[in-house]
Amino acid sequence: MRPPANPLPGHHLVDAAIAWIDAAAYHLDIEDTPLLTARGRVLAKDIHAVRPIPTGDRAALDGFAVQASASLGASTYNPVQLPLIAVAAGDALPAGTDAVIPLELAEPDERACIEVVEAAAAGDNVEQQGAVATIGATLVPTGTQLAARHIGLLTIARLSRVTVFRRPRVQILLAKPAKADACEDSDGPMIRASVERDGGVVEQCVAVERGLTAIRAALVEAGVDIVLVLGGIGPGIDDHSAAALAEAGELAIYGVALRPGETTGLGRTVGGVPVVLLPGAPAACLWSYELFAGRAIRRVGGGGPELPCRSREIITARKIVSAIGMTEICPVRCGAGDTVEPVPSFAETGLMATVGADGFVIVPEGSEGRPQGAGVTVYLYEGC
Amino acid sequence: MRPPANPLPGHHLVDAAIAWIDAAAYHLDIEDTPLLTARGRVLAKDIHAVRPIPTGDRAALDGFAVQASASLGASTYNPVQLPLIAVAAGDALPAGTDAVIPLELAEPDERACIEVVEAAAAGDNVEQQGAVATIGATLVPTGTQLAARHIGLLTIARLSRVTVFRRPRVQILLAKPAKADACEDSDGPMIRASVERDGGVVEQCVAVERGLTAIRAALVEAGVDIVLVLGGIGPGIDDHSAAALAEAGELAIYGVALRPGETTGLGRTVGGVPVVLLPGAPAACLWSYELFAGRAIRRVGGGGPELPCRSREIITARKIVSAIGMTEICPVRCGAGDTVEPVPSFAETGLMATVGADGFVIVPEGSEGRPQGAGVTVYLYEGC
Repeated sequence: MRPPANPLPGHHLVDAAIAWIDAAAYHLDIEDTPLLTARGRVLAKDIHAVRPIPTGDRAALDGFAVQASASLGASTYNPVQLPLIAVAAGDALPAGTDAVIPLELAEPDERACIEVVEAAAAGDNVEQQGAVATIGATLVPTGTQLAARHIGLLTIARLSRVTVFRRPRVQILLAKPAKADACEDSDGPMIRASVERDGGVVEQCVAVERGLTAIRAALVEAGVDIVLVLGGIGPGIDDHSAAALAEAGELAIYGVALRPGETTGLGRTVGGVPVVLLPGAPAACLWSYELFAGRAIRRVGGGGPELPCRSREIITARKIVSAIGMTEICPVRCGAGDTVEPVPSFAETGLMATVGADGFVIVPEGSEGRPQGAGVTVYLYEGC
Repeated sequence: MRPPANPLPGHHLVDAAIAWIDAAAYHLDIEDTPLLTARGRVLAKDIHAVRPIPTGDRAALDGFAVQASASLGASTYNPVQLPLIAVAAGDALPAGTDAVIPLELAEPDERACIEVVEAAAAGDNVEQQGAVATIGATLVPTGTQLAARHIGLLTIARLSRVTVFRRPRVQILLAKPAKADACEDSDGPMIRASVERDGGVVEQCVAVERGLTAIRAALVEAGVDIVLVLGGIGPGIDDHSAAALAEAGELAIYGVALRPGETTGLGRTVGGVPVVLLPGAPAACLWSYELFAGRAIRRVGGGGPELPCRSREIITARKIVSAIGMTEICPVRCGAGDTVEPVPSFAETGLMATVGADGFVIVPEGSEGRPQGAGVTVYLYEGC
């Protein structure tokens, strides 16, 4: 018998693990940040216009501001002379004017006048006060990930700071393998890059001796929103991360029917901070991150919890084989005629499988795969 | 007659302007950067494996390393005792062993032995040297925008630095309007955010007096890869950016059949640095950036020049109207049954049109729009 300090991984369904993560990862505090550096941040409050946009009537194009009534009756046979009041697009309409005549439709002369050959109507080429937004109109809704276009609009609305969700602070503990040659060394840089992609801030990324005591001690440190432990889980005699979490807090889920990633663990520190235990094998680590750790980070950052890859229905050109009872991540390549076909699996070539692939299919545990000609939801790597 | 110093915008086709940008914006220098901070950078050289991955035969799972021939004949009726050599997944196979028996299929005893009830074959549960990649295999090809998965793979391959394209250095000159209330104030933060999205570095973002002399003087400064001048272009009497570029270098294209964005200018400083003149009106500035300035930045950064939005064919639920003779950007919203319909245009609501929209359609100059029920290529804002 194995001592109780080293629990064996179970076989929790992926959906159950996701439900646990969603319940444990709650929305974060909000903070004010300068608009100038807010690209990519997620808005935590609707932003309403506090003044109309534009604030007053303004020229919609370059030309000459006129009082429309003074141009009444103008024609090529009866040119009307009006005072020369040049305006550029965006200029406030000068007092006493209510229309703009385009630059090319009037000719200035030497006496500071223009000659008009067509009558203007009030409001011609004028952008009315509030035409873009009236007071109180929602400019950008809460939950929006701010892009350049939002920053432009909010600058027009004279905002210089915005209220956004605080970036999730992440601690990465590398359960350092006893043997220096082991593959876990690759996980730190990969997971750090993933956390950054998902909007998190890596507050700490440290190696911890792969012993029960060292890992348990590391798990009581605080000041972060989520803790990731890389490696040291599984049935190996040298694997103490799960036991350490069980002692340092709560090991809620250990062992998930996910391939790669089946030794994933989920739990909390004694202070209630969510902890994800990620397998040390690189492909398993990556997928445990994408489905559970990344989901938690994306959630607590106020963004959508979904995988940050776009997905699309595509027809399979060849059968995709998957083990029944396991949710399996199957790398695929796009082929002729908008089809996909499987490429060597993560089990065969590890992370190389992600490089040769254009994306992946998630085959649920109830399925043995997908027959040739079936439509499958493909998550595409492009830009992800 | 207008003095020759202030040229009038012409009516160049968008495709001609794009061809000019593509010819002017060439690939940049390359540089070495630490792998740890290389996420999002574009690889400038194929990376080949300099050693096999794995470097030697290793355990594919946690278990016990054995010499397969010693287990010959083992069965539940004839258990065979073998030396206990525990290995974790990823461990190098100890000398004299050639197979791994999974943890759950053997029972260790007190005499440092395991009892085996099934014969193993050489190579069982062993990941062979070079199984992931042999020496010389391409790990990640040139042109790849590095994501977490690549960083993981390259860490496994023991790389700590990678050769990437240098980030394009961008100078932003704000042709400061005479009147403080004018809308150009919004362009700086918006364009800065766009440059950062496209992988560029804003080296300088300064306001320049909107006079011919001041703009011309600013255009001779060097040390950047591309210069963007915001505002001060168009037929207005106060618009000197085009004339300044014509004097300070070359004004190659001035006036493009693009709406919004028709006063866009393209040219070079005397030192040959590409210059894009962007209209001051915010929506026009944004689209002039997306189609020309952003394209140049994306190109010289080694990435794809295309708009960084995903696109998809969608059916129109209502007619999309566009002016013939102009390439028009028409904002659209996604509706029921996977359709799109037009929303108020940029001409009507400026940048607000981007916030109410889910994406946009680019209607070419030869078309008056798209009828109801037609398939159109929609560029989607999501994640862009």
